Amino acid sequence: MKILGISGSLRAESFNTRLLKAASELIREEGVVFEIHEIARIPLYNSDLDGGTKPEPVVDLIDAITGADGVLFATPEYNYSISGVLKNAIDWASRPAFNSCLTRKPCAVLSASMSTLGGARAQVHLRDILLGTLSPIYLAPDFLLASAHTAFDANGALVDQKTMDFLKQYLHGYISWLKSRKNA
Amino acid sequence: MKILGISGSLRAESFNTRLLKAASELIREEGVVFEIHEIARIPLYNSDLDGGTKPEPVVDLIDAITGADGVLFATPEYNYSISGVLKNAIDWASRPAFNSCLTRKPCAVLSASMSTLGGARAQVHLRDILLGTLSPIYLAPDFLLASAHTAFDANGALVDQKTMDFLKQYLHGYISWLKSRKNA
Amino acid sequence: MKILGISGSLRAESFNTRLLKAASELIREEGVVFEIHEIARIPLYNSDLDGGTKPEPVVDLIDAITGADGVLFATPEYNYSISGVLKNAIDWASRPAFNSCLTRKPCAVLSASMSTLGGARAQVHLRDILLGTLSPIYLAPDFLLASAHTAFDANGALVDQKTMDFLKQYLHGYISWLKSRKNA
Amino acid sequence: MKILGISGSLRAESFNTRLLKAASELIREEGVVFEIHEIARIPLYNSDLDGGTKPEPVVDLIDAITGADGVLFATPEYNYSISGVLKNAIDWASRPAFNSCLTRKPCAVLSASMSTLGGARAQVHLRDILLGTLSPIYLAPDFLLASAHTAFDANGALVDQKTMDFLKQYLHGYISWLKSRKNA
Repeated sequence: MKILGISGSLRAESFNTRLLKAASELIREEGVVFEIHEIARIPLYNSDLDGGTKPEPVVDLIDAITGADGVLFATPEYNYSISGVLKNAIDWASRPAFNSCLTRKPCAVLSASMSTLGGARAQVHLRDILLGTLSPIYLAPDFLLASAHTAFDANGALVDQKTMDFLKQYLHGYISWLKSRKNA
Repeated sequence: MKILGISGSLRAESFNTRLLKAASELIREEGVVFEIHEIARIPLYNSDLDGGTKPEPVVDLIDAITGADGVLFATPEYNYSISGVLKNAIDWASRPAFNSCLTRKPCAVLSASMSTLGGARAQVHLRDILLGTLSPIYLAPDFLLASAHTAFDANGALVDQKTMDFLKQYLHGYISWLKSRKNA
Repeated sequence: MKILGISGSLRAESFNTRLLKAASELIREEGVVFEIHEIARIPLYNSDLDGGTKPEPVVDLIDAITGADGVLFATPEYNYSISGVLKNAIDWASRPAFNSCLTRKPCAVLSASMSTLGGARAQVHLRDILLGTLSPIYLAPDFLLASAHTAFDANGALVDQKTMDFLKQYLHGYISWLKSRKNA
Repeated sequence: MKILGISGSLRAESFNTRLLKAASELIREEGVVFEIHEIARIPLYNSDLDGGTKPEPVVDLIDAITGADGVLFATPEYNYSISGVLKNAIDWASRPAFNSCLTRKPCAVLSASMSTLGGARAQVHLRDILLGTLSPIYLAPDFLLASAHTAFDANGALVDQKTMDFLKQYLHGYISWLKSRKNA
């Protein structure tokens, strides 16, 4: 089984990318392949290109999602919503509507922010969007990393134990759900 | 007085860009300067660049918003939300939070789509986002152009009379509101 | 198998209640029991009563949801959201959080309105709410009945053939999903 | 000048009602009349009664909103949204659409919850709804009272100094905005 991670932040020391890196180890402990897919090179979406030859980074993204059993998003919150960067990647991946690589692809959502909210409003928008792409969403109490600047060490490793424990539990639940869907 | 138009679609024959072009004439009839600002060259947002030298197309966008009395958005609906392209432009323009070129900038929202919904859900997300940037939003019954492919002629001119009338009324209300704010 | 229908409108000739009545026949044709549960007698929610003796109409609602394999909502759109009446019923049914009769209960959403939008924005809010109650949501192109006043005859029967066909397809998909979940 | 307070929680020791009580003193210090309007007796909304004789508690609510210069809401978060109780009151008050006592009535939003989020998602839904009623919304960094159970003393008085200071600043900004609108 394979899970694809996508971070909505391009910042080098992004808390969300770090969160996916922390998830990486925990997921592999469960015997599941995990790969983080970069979206930094994806151009701005232009629907004139739908149906035609897509830019290479877009083809790579679609291939990566297609080849995965599930997608794990980690999103920052910008202006009460997800980043335009992440939305742009989803816009490319979501064509054609109702029959894209995201359709019926089971997704889960993490978020991290420096505020006390941890990206709660971004998660609401991301779920709205994933319902639009007909992607099943893992249901569990939200994983929200608030005060994210205090949870990592100088090397970017997640060191807050409470966050680690909750992340482990969240990912275990997500993987169990993916397995039950696969066996159904 | 000056209004800036921003289309969330990069498609050459975008219904939303055409809508702004139709708005252009109606706005000028009211004696107001109107300019459409292209966002096609804006790179993906990376918060590492906040505070530093911003890419030229971003500087242009911020200058254009700063110099306008109001911003008129026209957004497509992709996956129940606005385009990543438009969100990405707003992410750049919205820094620093609570004190950006969008803060206290009075905005209005148009949308067009081929469906019967005309972008209603995208408008909800855009308004959520504009509340996050502390931008006052023009309040009026929504301007939603449904079945947009039937409203324009072969040259891209808006020919549907009912849509023209409603657009005129909507823009007149928006401009009156801008004027009343300016005189307050 | 049994499905429970809940209408968010108390109006005697409510389009949403009529829609559930039309659904009733189509669901029974699939060999599934269907029952519409009235929420008109449910009092305003007061969390002081959580854990104590609940009012009888609330107990009835919770029993009905508990005894059903799925819940089919039909909601009007009031002020871009679902009715307070429906939200109030959900507030009662959703306690305790993460372990209520709605938790893991597979839901589907219909909506009807006289406008051209058919309740699209209400559906977004209802889905946000159902994600909050950890209720799996049936994923399919939205069932939105626009111009609802033209779809029923004088006796309140659904007569618009296109709507009938789409409703039948939607319900068939929902029931298939419920069955696949039950057998998993 | 007069502001009306409406709490979305009917609980006797509601944090949101207590927040309005704390607001009460701060508002009066600014020389503005403040009154909390109870919505506990408002029946479930039924649009069959639109245009006819409304129940007495509904008439009282509409009179109170009509007579106020602004409405200050305090809402709990139930299932990622506002309470059904509050939505139900708004549904009554919002008729007829685009020309109700809420149309053009300037509103502000507080929220309190025991979680670390303080009702952030409920505020998003409430603002969506208030845009639907064409009510101008006071724009400022959100007032969110997290961990509300630690902010009040045994008598229900707000004792957390940081919260007091922010509330005072928020209300001062709201009142200044109301005054500037009145003088415009």
